[in-house]
Amino acid sequence: MTPYFTQLTPLSFLRRSADVHPDREAVVYNDTALTYSQFAAMAESRARAFRAAGVRPGDRVAYFMPNVPEALIAQFAVPLAGAVLVAVNTRLASEEVKQIVDHSQAKMLVVDSGLVDVIAHVEFETVETIAVVTDPAAGPASVEFPELADLADAIGDGGKALNWSVADENSLISINYTSGTTGAPKGVMYSHRGAYLSAIGGLIHSKHSADSVYLWTLPMFHCNGWSTGWAVAAAGGKQVCLREVRDRVIWELIDRHRVTHFNCAPTVMISVLGSDRAHRLDSPVTVTLGGAPPSPSMAQEMRQYGFVPIPCYGLTETHGPYAVCEPQDSWQHLDDTTLAKLMSRQGVGMIQAERLRVVRLGPRDGDDLVDVPADGQTMGEIVMRGNNVMIGYFRDPEATERAFDGGWFHSGDLGVMHPDGYVELRDRAKDIVVSGGENISTVEIEQALMSHPAVIEVAVVGVPDDKWGERPKAFVLADNSHSITESELMEYLRGQIARYKVPRQIEFVNDLPKTSTGKIQKFQLKEAEWAGREFLIN
Amino acid sequence: MTPYFTQLTPLSFLRRSADVHPDREAVVYNDTALTYSQFAAMAESRARAFRAAGVRPGDRVAYFMPNVPEALIAQFAVPLAGAVLVAVNTRLASEEVKQIVDHSQAKMLVVDSGLVDVIAHVEFETVETIAVVTDPAAGPASVEFPELADLADAIGDGGKALNWSVADENSLISINYTSGTTGAPKGVMYSHRGAYLSAIGGLIHSKHSADSVYLWTLPMFHCNGWSTGWAVAAAGGKQVCLREVRDRVIWELIDRHRVTHFNCAPTVMISVLGSDRAHRLDSPVTVTLGGAPPSPSMAQEMRQYGFVPIPCYGLTETHGPYAVCEPQDSWQHLDDTTLAKLMSRQGVGMIQAERLRVVRLGPRDGDDLVDVPADGQTMGEIVMRGNNVMIGYFRDPEATERAFDGGWFHSGDLGVMHPDGYVELRDRAKDIVVSGGENISTVEIEQALMSHPAVIEVAVVGVPDDKWGERPKAFVLADNSHSITESELMEYLRGQIARYKVPRQIEFVNDLPKTSTGKIQKFQLKEAEWAGREFLIN
Repeated sequence: MTPYFTQLTPLSFLRRSADVHPDREAVVYNDTALTYSQFAAMAESRARAFRAAGVRPGDRVAYFMPNVPEALIAQFAVPLAGAVLVAVNTRLASEEVKQIVDHSQAKMLVVDSGLVDVIAHVEFETVETIAVVTDPAAGPASVEFPELADLADAIGDGGKALNWSVADENSLISINYTSGTTGAPKGVMYSHRGAYLSAIGGLIHSKHSADSVYLWTLPMFHCNGWSTGWAVAAAGGKQVCLREVRDRVIWELIDRHRVTHFNCAPTVMISVLGSDRAHRLDSPVTVTLGGAPPSPSMAQEMRQYGFVPIPCYGLTETHGPYAVCEPQDSWQHLDDTTLAKLMSRQGVGMIQAERLRVVRLGPRDGDDLVDVPADGQTMGEIVMRGNNVMIGYFRDPEATERAFDGGWFHSGDLGVMHPDGYVELRDRAKDIVVSGGENISTVEIEQALMSHPAVIEVAVVGVPDDKWGERPKAFVLADNSHSITESELMEYLRGQIARYKVPRQIEFVNDLPKTSTGKIQKFQLKEAEWAGREFLIN
Repeated sequence: MTPYFTQLTPLSFLRRSADVHPDREAVVYNDTALTYSQFAAMAESRARAFRAAGVRPGDRVAYFMPNVPEALIAQFAVPLAGAVLVAVNTRLASEEVKQIVDHSQAKMLVVDSGLVDVIAHVEFETVETIAVVTDPAAGPASVEFPELADLADAIGDGGKALNWSVADENSLISINYTSGTTGAPKGVMYSHRGAYLSAIGGLIHSKHSADSVYLWTLPMFHCNGWSTGWAVAAAGGKQVCLREVRDRVIWELIDRHRVTHFNCAPTVMISVLGSDRAHRLDSPVTVTLGGAPPSPSMAQEMRQYGFVPIPCYGLTETHGPYAVCEPQDSWQHLDDTTLAKLMSRQGVGMIQAERLRVVRLGPRDGDDLVDVPADGQTMGEIVMRGNNVMIGYFRDPEATERAFDGGWFHSGDLGVMHPDGYVELRDRAKDIVVSGGENISTVEIEQALMSHPAVIEVAVVGVPDDKWGERPKAFVLADNSHSITESELMEYLRGQIARYKVPRQIEFVNDLPKTSTGKIQKFQLKEAEWAGREFLIN
């Protein structure tokens, strides 16, 4: 054992807080609370249950669960067992859950009692054990599975000691599935080192401390909640869980627990600000925003209530936040409009990240990527690298190679570099619509539509939406021999893909704009929908 | 280039802050100030000067300089040139400086104009270039050496681009010499990774932010100032330099710059509290304390003035602070005396460190170290490991092996483990006196005394001192044929060792207590001097 080297792992954060502050409240949920000592003991108990169920180091354990304490415990329990956490989006339909769980080759699936319906009748390819965690707030599961807590007792785990350290900091801690750009979700792999440093970065930028009371408005299945569960455990703060992210519940919990921090997409913030419970805060609440930039009016309104917005930018492939729009000292005296415009930019690399680059889409300098001029005008692709970047896509070396072309992770986002070094997003190269902070693949919707016999050709693009930022819209060329209606197609889609992905509008057209080689020019459709706006994203 | 891996180095902290906040004040000194952009540019300019002087990657560059901006710039400039910083204690005598510089095999020595006298006539073994930095506040150097700033211009650096990253995070960033326990100082090697993580730990525990105004009361030559120069640069805060750490200057700077943080040994704090300028602070100032624990009355007095004490524990071998005495929530309602007693313990491992252990001095379990019971009574040796620990002693594999015996770094400090997991120091296994936060080797003083022809036998131990915590005291058996006096011996010592190491008292004795094998029982001498006190350290 090298005396001067400890492998970095976020497990050390909970180990330390349980050591140093065993009796401090770590997690609260409805009328229950866990101290740090209980939190760590729960993680150990779950880790033993995984072992008892035959989970071996490196195996994947999938979780299908809302933001309840058990999902937070999993962030420590799964790696503590040496296994890899796959937290699945709770808004997905059965077939989508199956696709992800199967692709991850998970050996075990843990499901919240309120979500059992979705997976009860799915035939998973590799899952050997399904365990349920009954949440009294959700009621018992409709179909019977063993309770996770009973597993260790029932099977016995051989009593091997658990180790709160890892043999290799570059080994996997979790796989987080993207919404996918080709219809097939991709499994983004995080290492212990990346998770540790990303948590530290979040801790520093969001200024977490032992006084933090963090409210879980951000889904834990999104990049493991941007590493915030690990960060707050490191700081020794308190985490407030909730089943459903609704404005009235958020306000109730803010008031009841004297919340100091939460993270969310602008959509959630809009509902918080628009709530009939909204009121001026007694003490400031820091809100780390991601998924989409806050609109100028929203940022202003947030400050009026006493929220402190920290706008971030990143992707699943970068553990969530990679960049932060850090305010400059000289911005203090700017008028609100100018300030809001500057603050709606994606910003600069965080403390644990490298400099962002915006690189030319055209020819390179040999193998090297070439930066666009920092003129705030020339568009290029935003690329990133370093400890904040995933170690690759699971079981997809080709996609990994493409994503890492030239030694940098390609975001697929188009933007400009301003003269002050701040990056601003202008459009997406990838076929993605960001709706309420969720990435929706247009290609996936197109494929679902194409599976209907009446559909001949289709193109889906993002169109502006005041509430959701963007929503997908479909342009469909239908076979005239079928008399299909918009609502029939919508209904069909609801059976194929998650409801939030279903376009808000389907327009039947006689033809689609195409290039000379026959490729559909989605850009042209998009431009028409966004006419009169400065950017093609919202 | 692996897209998901960035080698950790504190260089990235200044690179980022110069990028993001180029115009923000980074360093102030008397009536001058450097912005972050200028700070980084100075580091680049110095790095070019080193190259111009023939410094190659891995070479050592020694600095002999008080806490002026140039010494802070060196913490970035030297590693930026790929070289290794050796910051030498400015209180050392010429021969001691020579010993360290020679042992480090430094190729270059940079000296403050006010300190040139000390090294001007020393013949260094490996130094090829001596450069001076003229500080107007110190006046011009008495002996002429080239000015560091002129070197790059004079010799030319070949124009190679500088790289703010490193090829291997485990490579050396600095060597920091201890006072030594056998008379010969040991060169403690730090890696870029250790420095990065230690800086992050300091940032989190001292709660540094962009609003930090950090006053340099802690010598930068002490473990590179506990990595604080890197930490504050990471946070984008301001650092206030000063030539001499005196109470009136400290108060003047606190008021003038609205200082938020400083680090120091309790001795410095005592002089600050005892100053005729002392007054209640307008806003809290966080003081990270190391070198020795704060006395109960001092901690109480600090709080009365508005200082927030953060007591830390560590050694040069652990980048300075490794442990922190983190207050428990339940201590809030304790009376001052009980609280002070709890807070004077060394505490628990910091966030970036591992758990401290207190291990049996006696037999092991095979090769494994055995923990003493956590009963607050059983004495053992405090051992540490992980990223906060040095990578070894420079050119001293035997001492390294001894220090890392059993896979843990042996502090040489004796202590107990309390039931709550907090460590408390009780005595030192090593022959060290900690005086005003400085480690003084008793063996070194003994050797200096023994070199006088009148001295036959000698023993030096630490005795309590109200101002300095401890001071060395010598017991001397003299040859009766010489009529040597205490003051003559004191005068002789001043020519041999630094003034602060000279004992405050020399007692002539007729014999020294010895074991049956003839070994002097220093413990017995020490006990008599510390009679009536609970511990044998202060």
